[in-house]
Amino acid sequence: MGRLTQRRKVVKHVLGSEHPVRTREDVLVVEEPLEIRLGGGAGAAAGGAMSYSVTMRTPGDDFDLVAGFLVSEGVVWEKGQILAERFCAGEDEDGRQTFNVVEAQLHPGVALPETGRNVYTSSSCGICGTDSIESVRRSGHHSPADDDVRLTPELVASLPDRLREGQALFSKTGGVHAAGLFRVTEDGADAELVCLREDVGRHNAVDKVVGWALREGRLPLRGTVLQVSGRASFELVQKAAMAGIPVLAAVSAPSSLAADLAETSGVTLVGFSRGTSFNVYAGHSRIT
Amino acid sequence: MGRLTQRRKVVKHVLGSEHPVRTREDVLVVEEPLEIRLGGGAGAAAGGAMSYSVTMRTPGDDFDLVAGFLVSEGVVWEKGQILAERFCAGEDEDGRQTFNVVEAQLHPGVALPETGRNVYTSSSCGICGTDSIESVRRSGHHSPADDDVRLTPELVASLPDRLREGQALFSKTGGVHAAGLFRVTEDGADAELVCLREDVGRHNAVDKVVGWALREGRLPLRGTVLQVSGRASFELVQKAAMAGIPVLAAVSAPSSLAADLAETSGVTLVGFSRGTSFNVYAGHSRIT
Repeated sequence: MGRLTQRRKVVKHVLGSEHPVRTREDVLVVEEPLEIRLGGGAGAAAGGAMSYSVTMRTPGDDFDLVAGFLVSEGVVWEKGQILAERFCAGEDEDGRQTFNVVEAQLHPGVALPETGRNVYTSSSCGICGTDSIESVRRSGHHSPADDDVRLTPELVASLPDRLREGQALFSKTGGVHAAGLFRVTEDGADAELVCLREDVGRHNAVDKVVGWALREGRLPLRGTVLQVSGRASFELVQKAAMAGIPVLAAVSAPSSLAADLAETSGVTLVGFSRGTSFNVYAGHSRIT
Repeated sequence: MGRLTQRRKVVKHVLGSEHPVRTREDVLVVEEPLEIRLGGGAGAAAGGAMSYSVTMRTPGDDFDLVAGFLVSEGVVWEKGQILAERFCAGEDEDGRQTFNVVEAQLHPGVALPETGRNVYTSSSCGICGTDSIESVRRSGHHSPADDDVRLTPELVASLPDRLREGQALFSKTGGVHAAGLFRVTEDGADAELVCLREDVGRHNAVDKVVGWALREGRLPLRGTVLQVSGRASFELVQKAAMAGIPVLAAVSAPSSLAADLAETSGVTLVGFSRGTSFNVYAGHSRIT
């Protein structure tokens, strides 16, 4: 769609140089809202689609993004549960299609979520990390806990560079996160990059990878590592666990809840992976 | 509350070293969910509080976080509109108060949002960047457009280092974003750091700063610069605009929509601010 980047005039200041102020063109990563709508599913109103969520994202691979988001939310977990996806008619002020609304048609056997995301109608006042972890454990159709994949330390250490090599958008804009899915060889010494996605949102990059896998019929993602460019938050571990990914490796720091959830859900969590060293926060037995 | 960091045993791998595998303690930044509830306001059901949003955040300054979030969402824009905030009773499985639910009591004159956040019930299918920008322009009670603050390039270039100096949590964990609010002197050559907040979520750090300012009766934040540690997304520019902050400076890249919104809303947007150089994406007239 050619909307991944945008050229823009910027004023560059370089202190102490001969020409301290210059006007030049810069390439920015595109960020636009995506509205996710759900149609069909069990108990759906006839003909109606519910507005489920709005996320800011980099356009492209939007059907994957929506599919992956629905996996992360526990709404779907296998290919046939999404019957179709389409761009809804949406126009900007000049009458152009915006491609910023996607409707996913769910199989009649899929339970529609009761409300939109981020709205908790429960009257219980006791939400806490434990509850969130429990909900992931309950709804996980693809537990990575029994995945016996093994990785050498050398393989783990090599993944950030291999991710960076594939980051075309980052090279141009410096403004995006990336997630790369690697399939590990049987001896644990090598891995093949099978899917790489970039996005302004770290969560979106992971959702795009997971959604691609769902639509290819590849869930659960046994025997894989997901390498991400930034930090490891609770939500990234949650997304890995829901897709059955046994190893999540981040270039930067994990949070406390990310480590807790990794431990509970059987995900190996690697952080501060910087080429020659890395830390393992949970599931160390998979590193040989 | 002593819950900003958590000690945890990690296995550290250092390839090629004498002791390639070591077990040691690492300090992780704490991440926990916060549920935001709204009580009072116009048209509120008697005695009831609505669940408005759940965000993952680093505990601490939670009342500021909630207040700033409500400013960003356009629900409130001056001090008296939030009558009180309190922690709701919430217990974990061991019966300890979780401090993870905050209820904000709104002034009867404040219009309650119709639904929780992230759920768009509008039947229009035309959401796009333009609409989002329009909604910010419509609801902005504190337009930064006419703020005549001026900054020297040397001041702009100095802010990332001054932010980093104040980042206690980052020094310990490497896992947090920061936002620092600087009040610029009249000659534009210097600035005083008036509020710095750190959080696992970049948006939360900004919300905590803005909420602090609301509760101190300091909105709109005329004559200030907000320096942030990461990239500049649409939402960060939106938050700056809603608080009347005339200059937003980011260490890393902005997105296309961030630059668009900055231009439209009169926010000066600085990106790639790296000590001796920076780019200005919008509102260059404020840099002298």
